[in-house]
Amino acid sequence: MHALLVRIKVKPERLDDFIEATMENAKASNNEPGIVRFDLLRSSDDPTGFVLYEVYRDADAPARHKESPHYLAWRDACEPMLDGPRVRETLAGIFVPDHRV
Amino acid sequence: MHALLVRIKVKPERLDDFIEATMENAKASNNEPGIVRFDLLRSSDDPTGFVLYEVYRDADAPARHKESPHYLAWRDACEPMLDGPRVRETLAGIFVPDHRV
Repeated sequence: MHALLVRIKVKPERLDDFIEATMENAKASNNEPGIVRFDLLRSSDDPTGFVLYEVYRDADAPARHKESPHYLAWRDACEPMLDGPRVRETLAGIFVPDHRV
Repeated sequence: MHALLVRIKVKPERLDDFIEATMENAKASNNEPGIVRFDLLRSSDDPTGFVLYEVYRDADAPARHKESPHYLAWRDACEPMLDGPRVRETLAGIFVPDHRV
């Protein structure tokens, strides 16, 4: 399984907007058949720092996610809310139990 | 929800032992009522680098986990396999859908 940690820094005045838009994206993403996890977390040290934890079922799933209407809407809505570029870390899932199967 | 990313560096000659012991711990941890997620991941850039992604249902759950027989057995078994200290990052779960509920 292909996993991503995406670190996102948000402008302080856009925190509520960012959380609302990202929760909408996260809910829709969790319904994609290719997605095992799509969690939104916030740094305990920095209230403007967020992490997306994304786990994909197969190699094609990330590309399908990036074509989804909810991803595209989220990307466009959030772009002006971000304070710097999103930073991605790629991981391989060794044990990620899938409660849907 | 209280979440943790734990980064673990493993001695190259102990990789298989580490994965076996950690999968056992992860399986048992996923059955704890206080645990929402306990995933094992491996860095795509460094085959000796691992990440545990742990999400706890309430504030007491991490302490209960640390008293569990599977955690204590894992900690003792893995201690000599590690290449440096474990590094923890604390996060708050904003959207972590729980398929068990």
